[in-house]
Amino acid sequence: MARILSIAVTQMACSWDRDANIQRAAAMVEEAAGQGAQVVLLQELFETPYFCIDKNKAFLKEATTVAANPAIQAMRVLARKLNVVIPVSFFERDGDRHFNSLAMIDADGEILGVYRKSHIPDFPDYEEAFYFEPGDTGFMVFETKFARLGAAICWDQWFPEAARAMALKGAEVLLYPTAIGWPIEPTQSRFKNSKVHWQQVMQGHAGANIMILAASNRIGAEHGISGQTQFYGGSLIVDHIGTKAAEADEATSQIMVKSFDMDEIALYRKDWGIFRTRRPDLYAPLCLAE
Amino acid sequence: MARILSIAVTQMACSWDRDANIQRAAAMVEEAAGQGAQVVLLQELFETPYFCIDKNKAFLKEATTVAANPAIQAMRVLARKLNVVIPVSFFERDGDRHFNSLAMIDADGEILGVYRKSHIPDFPDYEEAFYFEPGDTGFMVFETKFARLGAAICWDQWFPEAARAMALKGAEVLLYPTAIGWPIEPTQSRFKNSKVHWQQVMQGHAGANIMILAASNRIGAEHGISGQTQFYGGSLIVDHIGTKAAEADEATSQIMVKSFDMDEIALYRKDWGIFRTRRPDLYAPLCLAE
Repeated sequence: MARILSIAVTQMACSWDRDANIQRAAAMVEEAAGQGAQVVLLQELFETPYFCIDKNKAFLKEATTVAANPAIQAMRVLARKLNVVIPVSFFERDGDRHFNSLAMIDADGEILGVYRKSHIPDFPDYEEAFYFEPGDTGFMVFETKFARLGAAICWDQWFPEAARAMALKGAEVLLYPTAIGWPIEPTQSRFKNSKVHWQQVMQGHAGANIMILAASNRIGAEHGISGQTQFYGGSLIVDHIGTKAAEADEATSQIMVKSFDMDEIALYRKDWGIFRTRRPDLYAPLCLAE
Repeated sequence: MARILSIAVTQMACSWDRDANIQRAAAMVEEAAGQGAQVVLLQELFETPYFCIDKNKAFLKEATTVAANPAIQAMRVLARKLNVVIPVSFFERDGDRHFNSLAMIDADGEILGVYRKSHIPDFPDYEEAFYFEPGDTGFMVFETKFARLGAAICWDQWFPEAARAMALKGAEVLLYPTAIGWPIEPTQSRFKNSKVHWQQVMQGHAGANIMILAASNRIGAEHGISGQTQFYGGSLIVDHIGTKAAEADEATSQIMVKSFDMDEIALYRKDWGIFRTRRPDLYAPLCLAE
């Protein structure tokens, strides 16, 4: 019998009502599970607005330990109840250190591990370097009930190295919770097509590693003090040859579920021969500090 | 004044009449230059049919040294005459060793260097491992009159590592002469969408490295003893955000020329911040022998 994996991406707007955000996310997980999803991807840092638009020390209080995080607690209960895997993006505090992290919750509600975002954006409207240390976990793959899931976070998705590292660690799927958008007043017209760019790069990762990929992005306008962002959704599921299997619009809450024959994809990946014709002896330039 | 680069991709069918193939390629270079192209990309191994469909020692006699190669000789003259850069793919003999190589001919007719294909396919209908040693040059970038050109060859184009290595060495453009197709009798239906796959992966390289990319593929049906291949063209030019700027059809000889503002792309590449937020300390898994 073929091994079918059913995966969901979601997107929603977030407010400063943390409980309401978690409940909205929980409702989306319930609905996705009702549609047969075994893995439900929520977007990045969905417990709050994307506070990184500003640099503001007051927001550091939003960080929690893994054990104290309310979204993780809620999703653990839900994962066990619905028999679904839920990767949860959250703002992690570990002593005096802060990270942009992801807890992988297996279908029995157990936390399989925590990944800490490796690539930290440091730009106007994405002031993550003010809040988060660069992750110290390295790229991670989680052996969940239904599939081996590679999971990274937002800006990580721009780096072919991250996708490849997860693939080499045995990932069958690449997951990216995301928060990306445009300025509401588009002063930087050079980046006016960033949504297409963002999608093409991820489609490339899926094709180059011959595995499915899913990204859940935020929607809605959010206003900081120094900037404002229109998050543009476009959450998507990409198949193993890099084509879009499902794509959400830019503005509405959505849940999309797609199923894949994982045995067929594994055979394609093996037969296409990428992984047995690599030249790691020539890749040292990628690992040099600049 | 903006620095504009005008680049051409071409595609054609090849026979066992070597002189005729070179003349056809030369005519395409002339026409592309007439349309303003400063760099003209020809396809992989255009001096002969794609003999790697079979394993046949008799074809080893087609290999030449750099100095003795008739295509390189012809293109050096043409490059100087037309003031165009011409990367020339050829079957290289170096003593007892054979490589799938590319000579970069600058606009003054000088050879700037020779790249030897790093990733060697080793599959039915693509029996390159029978003929070619894995390249020993590493990935190369050539400082030509009009731009810093990264050039790799066909199967190399499936590897994000190769594209990234060229980008890190200062490439502004990624070039891939190619020979890829379908079986004429498509027994391997798993790969029936390989053209889309091939294009998506390259679009990903362009987007991930924020630089233009060009690939010239072969057309025509070629019949070996053990297999047959319908080369599917689809030669393309991709812009710096990964979208297709030009795409050829599957069956006809074509020349396509596109121009890009290299200063604008360089600014986008710098401002988008990929290269200053990399984490080479975490990329060691990519360089491990498997």
